Amino acid sequence: MTGHERMTVHERIAVLAHDRFPDDARGAIELVRYGRPEVVAVIDTARRSPVTSQLVRSLPRIPIVRRFDDVGEPVDALYVGIDLARDGRIADLSEPVRRDVRAALAAGCDVVVSRPGFPVGDPAFERATAAGGGRVVDVGAPPPDRSGDAGRDAGVDAEVLLTVGTDRYVGTSSTAFELVDAARERGVDAALVPTSHVGALLDGRGASIDRLPIGRVHDVVDGLVRERGERRDLLVVEGQGAICHPGSSGQICGLLHGARPDGLVLCHSAGRELMHGYDVDIPSVATHVDLYERVAAPVAETAVLAGALNTMNVATPPAAREAVADFAERLGAPATDPLRFDADALLDAVGLG
Amino acid sequence: MTGHERMTVHERIAVLAHDRFPDDARGAIELVRYGRPEVVAVIDTARRSPVTSQLVRSLPRIPIVRRFDDVGEPVDALYVGIDLARDGRIADLSEPVRRDVRAALAAGCDVVVSRPGFPVGDPAFERATAAGGGRVVDVGAPPPDRSGDAGRDAGVDAEVLLTVGTDRYVGTSSTAFELVDAARERGVDAALVPTSHVGALLDGRGASIDRLPIGRVHDVVDGLVRERGERRDLLVVEGQGAICHPGSSGQICGLLHGARPDGLVLCHSAGRELMHGYDVDIPSVATHVDLYERVAAPVAETAVLAGALNTMNVATPPAAREAVADFAERLGAPATDPLRFDADALLDAVGLG
Repeated sequence: MTGHERMTVHERIAVLAHDRFPDDARGAIELVRYGRPEVVAVIDTARRSPVTSQLVRSLPRIPIVRRFDDVGEPVDALYVGIDLARDGRIADLSEPVRRDVRAALAAGCDVVVSRPGFPVGDPAFERATAAGGGRVVDVGAPPPDRSGDAGRDAGVDAEVLLTVGTDRYVGTSSTAFELVDAARERGVDAALVPTSHVGALLDGRGASIDRLPIGRVHDVVDGLVRERGERRDLLVVEGQGAICHPGSSGQICGLLHGARPDGLVLCHSAGRELMHGYDVDIPSVATHVDLYERVAAPVAETAVLAGALNTMNVATPPAAREAVADFAERLGAPATDPLRFDADALLDAVGLG
Repeated sequence: MTGHERMTVHERIAVLAHDRFPDDARGAIELVRYGRPEVVAVIDTARRSPVTSQLVRSLPRIPIVRRFDDVGEPVDALYVGIDLARDGRIADLSEPVRRDVRAALAAGCDVVVSRPGFPVGDPAFERATAAGGGRVVDVGAPPPDRSGDAGRDAGVDAEVLLTVGTDRYVGTSSTAFELVDAARERGVDAALVPTSHVGALLDGRGASIDRLPIGRVHDVVDGLVRERGERRDLLVVEGQGAICHPGSSGQICGLLHGARPDGLVLCHSAGRELMHGYDVDIPSVATHVDLYERVAAPVAETAVLAGALNTMNVATPPAAREAVADFAERLGAPATDPLRFDADALLDAVGLG
């Protein structure tokens, strides 16, 4: 079953992160940080601490337990917050994972995954489903083909923002999540357009675009924006990749032209000079502003409205403030580190709330 | 079986194009036009003419027959020159197609396909294979994952050219095919890097990148270039898509940064003003030159060296010459229509032969 057949509505969830919390459990961390369904517990056999906030300072204090049966309160669903099946192969699930998936299904809970390769039709899981009523839901599966080209050029009412990067892993996802959160706090009817497996987990419905054949990406993104744009005032499209990055420029171009954003938020990592995974210099911030705006222009008149600087590697808050000010100057637009400080500067810059 | 497990070496082939030649049989047409294996016959139940050249003036004169058993001379392989399985579903093969595939396999011929969805493991085909010794070979299947990031930044010895477009369907494939053909005629050790199903059919080994998950495209293209670049003097990478096209910009960015070309050949269609399938104006030729060069620059110092203008819709040769001259001026580089005239201007511009 995929999220496109059935929206997942869960109030209280547990998050599976066996052996990988926190270092290799990005989905789990983002769920704890941003999850709309309340995260009641993180489940990790390794249990490096009794609570999440001791391992990741910026997280709320959520209990970590060793198995599903140790979750102290009732939950609707178990979300898989780690990558069980890298590279798209069918996952060879560890016994603790299998045990907790069976336990959740047998307890009538949905098991929510967003990565390819999860053995949805596993006989033991199907038996547990039949017995307990829970279901395995893949929220990152590509949506079905849209028919023909109809409506491709119609606009949407919502203001559409896209986060774009100067490199991979500079915060295009977390900036999008922060923007949606902050906008909602100001009373704006905002929604995320998830394009990664983590975003799909958070939102309950999206597309992990790195799973899509390249020829479908633009159209899928266009469809997601169109579908949500009718019902919301603000859409924040989760960007990924960077326009000159040798391994991910296709992704951001597909997003840029598929989403047709009204505005861009440029994400950058303080002090980074080489592109992630490559011996290639990162072009200047000004070059990025220019390239993103000019490549988008024929399809969407858009401008970089604000910047998000990842200052994780800057030691002190004053130095981080200085780095942000320097970034804003090079950008020619307001900037902040939305994780270290807050997203207000971004919202102000885009004129919201 | 895929083309990556076994290179196909065929001397004489027949091309299957049931019911679709010439209008909907692009693979068949390119095979007849450029095929290194000699095309002995095109097979089409509809048989709108006894020879190809009566249906497509620019093609050599190849017999069209109604079934595999009517091919008058021995062949090594049957190439499937039409899209039997659009949209990646398993093809529901028509009876004439099934009959001729079985006949070819039973005669000991390989059956070469390059589109997803061909029922490679069909029981009737497996029986025919067992009886006759022919095999079904998928030359467009994605190559296996390369391990890790090793060697990503090493250069290749060969001169690498990439064809890029101002729109989809402007001739990035045929310009690449013409360049390789013309270079070989001048004695240059040139090879195609095929990135489409048609290119894979022509070359016998490649990747239909539109079948690839977007996250793998850059790396696959890099691998194809690296593998061939060690053995050749010139590589021409078959481009597809256009940098501002709302449905294909991801493809060309993946190719641009994956291939790291030394030079670009810009392909354009005379008189076209709107992007294929979209109500979006095509930016100027100068804008395209600038964007391609600047987006590539951090990864590959490259320049638009020449232009290929598709003048199919220009009525007379003198008017076509004039359109080419105008295009060359806007481009600031030599140009031609390599199909209508020849590719010499392109080869001269890139300094080859």
